[in-house]
Amino acid sequence: MPHTIRDIALALGAEAAGDLDLTVARAAEPQAAGPGDLALAMDPRYADGIAKGQAQAAMLWPGADWQAMGLKAAIFAPRGRLAMAGLTRLMDPGPDIDAGVHGMAIVHPSAVIGSGAAIGPFVTIGAGVVIGPNARIASHTSIAEGARIGADCLILHGARIGARVTIGDRFICQPGAVIGADGFSFVTPEKSGVEEIRETLGSRADIKDQSWTRIHSLGAVTIGDDVEIGANVCVDRGTIRDTEIGPGTKLDNLVHIGHNVQIGRDCLLCGQVGIAGSARIGDRVVLGGQCGVNDNIFVGNDVICGGATKIFTNAPAGRVLLGYPAVKMETHVEIQKALRRLPRLATRVAALEKGVPFAPEAE
Amino acid sequence: MPHTIRDIALALGAEAAGDLDLTVARAAEPQAAGPGDLALAMDPRYADGIAKGQAQAAMLWPGADWQAMGLKAAIFAPRGRLAMAGLTRLMDPGPDIDAGVHGMAIVHPSAVIGSGAAIGPFVTIGAGVVIGPNARIASHTSIAEGARIGADCLILHGARIGARVTIGDRFICQPGAVIGADGFSFVTPEKSGVEEIRETLGSRADIKDQSWTRIHSLGAVTIGDDVEIGANVCVDRGTIRDTEIGPGTKLDNLVHIGHNVQIGRDCLLCGQVGIAGSARIGDRVVLGGQCGVNDNIFVGNDVICGGATKIFTNAPAGRVLLGYPAVKMETHVEIQKALRRLPRLATRVAALEKGVPFAPEAE
Amino acid sequence: MPHTIRDIALALGAEAAGDLDLTVARAAEPQAAGPGDLALAMDPRYADGIAKGQAQAAMLWPGADWQAMGLKAAIFAPRGRLAMAGLTRLMDPGPDIDAGVHGMAIVHPSAVIGSGAAIGPFVTIGAGVVIGPNARIASHTSIAEGARIGADCLILHGARIGARVTIGDRFICQPGAVIGADGFSFVTPEKSGVEEIRETLGSRADIKDQSWTRIHSLGAVTIGDDVEIGANVCVDRGTIRDTEIGPGTKLDNLVHIGHNVQIGRDCLLCGQVGIAGSARIGDRVVLGGQCGVNDNIFVGNDVICGGATKIFTNAPAGRVLLGYPAVKMETHVEIQKALRRLPRLATRVAALEKGVPFAPEAE
Repeated sequence: MPHTIRDIALALGAEAAGDLDLTVARAAEPQAAGPGDLALAMDPRYADGIAKGQAQAAMLWPGADWQAMGLKAAIFAPRGRLAMAGLTRLMDPGPDIDAGVHGMAIVHPSAVIGSGAAIGPFVTIGAGVVIGPNARIASHTSIAEGARIGADCLILHGARIGARVTIGDRFICQPGAVIGADGFSFVTPEKSGVEEIRETLGSRADIKDQSWTRIHSLGAVTIGDDVEIGANVCVDRGTIRDTEIGPGTKLDNLVHIGHNVQIGRDCLLCGQVGIAGSARIGDRVVLGGQCGVNDNIFVGNDVICGGATKIFTNAPAGRVLLGYPAVKMETHVEIQKALRRLPRLATRVAALEKGVPFAPEAE
Repeated sequence: MPHTIRDIALALGAEAAGDLDLTVARAAEPQAAGPGDLALAMDPRYADGIAKGQAQAAMLWPGADWQAMGLKAAIFAPRGRLAMAGLTRLMDPGPDIDAGVHGMAIVHPSAVIGSGAAIGPFVTIGAGVVIGPNARIASHTSIAEGARIGADCLILHGARIGARVTIGDRFICQPGAVIGADGFSFVTPEKSGVEEIRETLGSRADIKDQSWTRIHSLGAVTIGDDVEIGANVCVDRGTIRDTEIGPGTKLDNLVHIGHNVQIGRDCLLCGQVGIAGSARIGDRVVLGGQCGVNDNIFVGNDVICGGATKIFTNAPAGRVLLGYPAVKMETHVEIQKALRRLPRLATRVAALEKGVPFAPEAE
Repeated sequence: MPHTIRDIALALGAEAAGDLDLTVARAAEPQAAGPGDLALAMDPRYADGIAKGQAQAAMLWPGADWQAMGLKAAIFAPRGRLAMAGLTRLMDPGPDIDAGVHGMAIVHPSAVIGSGAAIGPFVTIGAGVVIGPNARIASHTSIAEGARIGADCLILHGARIGARVTIGDRFICQPGAVIGADGFSFVTPEKSGVEEIRETLGSRADIKDQSWTRIHSLGAVTIGDDVEIGANVCVDRGTIRDTEIGPGTKLDNLVHIGHNVQIGRDCLLCGQVGIAGSARIGDRVVLGGQCGVNDNIFVGNDVICGGATKIFTNAPAGRVLLGYPAVKMETHVEIQKALRRLPRLATRVAALEKGVPFAPEAE
């Protein structure tokens, strides 16, 4: 869908110059841009690309000399990635779902769907479900009995929303996500090996046969406003109360959220992060890809973890962590430096030992 | 569905006191409990919550003074988590699937479905499938040709059961799980870089172009009785014989089981665990979240691994492991302590070197 | 489906001996082989199994004395795993999908499907989709508007192919895979905590509330010829240009590919590997299970990583890596050895300190 430079600048609240009536249909990298594209070069190091491509218009850094680049029009973006957010929202065609309820969708008569819905084929919506206005629900999705979803949701292909799950407004759910699987909670009639290890930190009195009895999940999942859930994510329901995800929090693909977990607001959980049962995560926590959080621990507000950090114990607010097990990022860097020198250190100690005849024998 | 205190106590084989005819509809945490709820306070530290909530009945620890708490009835649970298992089973309404085969399910005429089945919409069941009595199969599930599933299965939304997979009784499958994907097995016409590394442990004679030829998976998957498979789990079929999961074993969400893997009985594999091809896992093994097991190795009976342990070599029975690479838990703790002191140790060695004039130069 | 020994040998380009008209219906491990099976014993250590089973024919190593084993016929495989590839391809019945388009599939009138297609029930194919000849598309799959897929594709149950995704010939997609989810890309109006950490490597001036604005994904995914994608894999679309996967590359189950990632040709990414946004992976790279690659870095051609390696910085071509963070495999082995001796090393240093009275105090 073509947009004028004027409209784009207006939508972004950005300055523009040149032929504001020029239209562009797509955004493109500078060197790949055709004559109908808007080249994106919000940093001077991308400026060279403009000449290599065919763009007549570009989004540039403030103060860029757009005329010298041979452009007919330009938009100036003081904070490039923020401008990207506005621009991509404007240009995203969204998924192709026909308005109304598809003839091959099965909506329970007791379900209440707000106005303006677009519900695709092979969707199932269970008894007592309530969905706010302007829902877009792509094919193959199931929304089980008693689920409640706010306004303006976008639920993509084959997502699974479990029974009695509650979700706020502007929910985005990528394909294949499962919200409301049963928790992974089992108990043995007698004390299990795992319980013994937790008490003794590693030694076991004796080992015997034991099989697992299931604790069913009676709770559901409660999700705040403005949450996005990635593809094939799994969020388990709580045992008694709901598992909770706070407003503004975003989960990337293949994230696992165990039962009873509580996640605060405005967190980012990157790809393949795993949060074990009953852990609590504060607000604005950022966990890099493949991080893990142990069960029953607390990660404070504003904690930031590098990729694959494994958190075994409570993490104080504001901490920046890395490593397995997680340590402060500075500590991790220092330990890694020392580790690389460790074989050499061993050699030096051996040398010292030869030179110290009266040293007591190391026990 | 409301239950009397008497019925609950009976179902749990637990003692009860007070008004045994009192009915409760839900279980709740003590402080959140309404007057029609059963408050759960099986440990004295939750006792305070009773006063904050409105429960008239509670499940308590043995010997608790229920009358002093202002309750009208109480159930006493000697092992709290075990009582939770019984209570939650009793109160779990289960998924809402109408009895019979939904008009929008496609069941091959040659498939045999036992009595008492509830099969939801958009389910496909292939040729020659045999499913035992009382199957509950939720919407969007596919069960491919020749699969055999025992009695009392519960297969949730969008699960994928592959061709010729065999599964025992009381199978529970969470949404989106894939049982019987093809194995990840490829070969190069000439020796591959990976084969060379395995032989030389890290050095490579020369590097050349190579592309991968697929080894198809002719085997299937065999799963014992009482197995539960988590959401979006993937279990690959074997190359020639079946991949195997023993009775009583439970897999959490997003677990990956490679081709030819053999897992024993009563194991717990927590979220995001990965087992590479042809590994063998004994009985009663517990792998914490994000653990990894290398291909072709053996993990003995009763091994327990902390979160994110990566097992590269055979693990003897009964071992308690942690770390990457896995070491005994005590060793891991000791190494971690020493690691934190390592930068300081380096300083101390440097100091020693200054004080030892006749020490030979460290080479 | 039965095959004669002659036909199998011919298909594999292998030598054969004995009764070449003998037919076998299945491949089997030697000890489990029935009289109508082809026993697989391409290595002398499996020879004993032949006597324990009932096979009349076997695939053996070159020069094996098949008559002494009591066999009626034998095929000789100079490179066993390569012969496995040919044999399993020959014997794989493939999924059971009826020819033509199932009556319960929804194919947009503007979609173009090549000749010879088999499209299962509950499949959706969107507007403008183009699929080459001989497509096999299993039940519950969705192929969104504008996607283009080459010849001879096999797309298994419940896979999700997103809008405008482009895929080459001979594509294999396991169940539940999601190709073309939206990228995980968010920006804060002001500099975020994560941006600050990247600049300061761990310290933060002050912490304030911030919420995340979404950057939409306008790009799609481009996949070359001969690619295989595992079960429940997630591949995100690019922000402006497409995320790319080169020809011949294979992804195992539960792999996560972030937005804008570029992967070269003939790579193997094993189970649960995660590649963060905008990383570039060269040709013939092999990443063991659970490896992670940081965002925006480059992994050179022919890099091979052991299981769970976490790559935080650019990796030069040909490197063999292991560890968290990734180091050369030899270095990793050396560090691990030194680590196990570290507690003892600390004891030895303490002993030296006692024996060196004039050493300056370690600061």
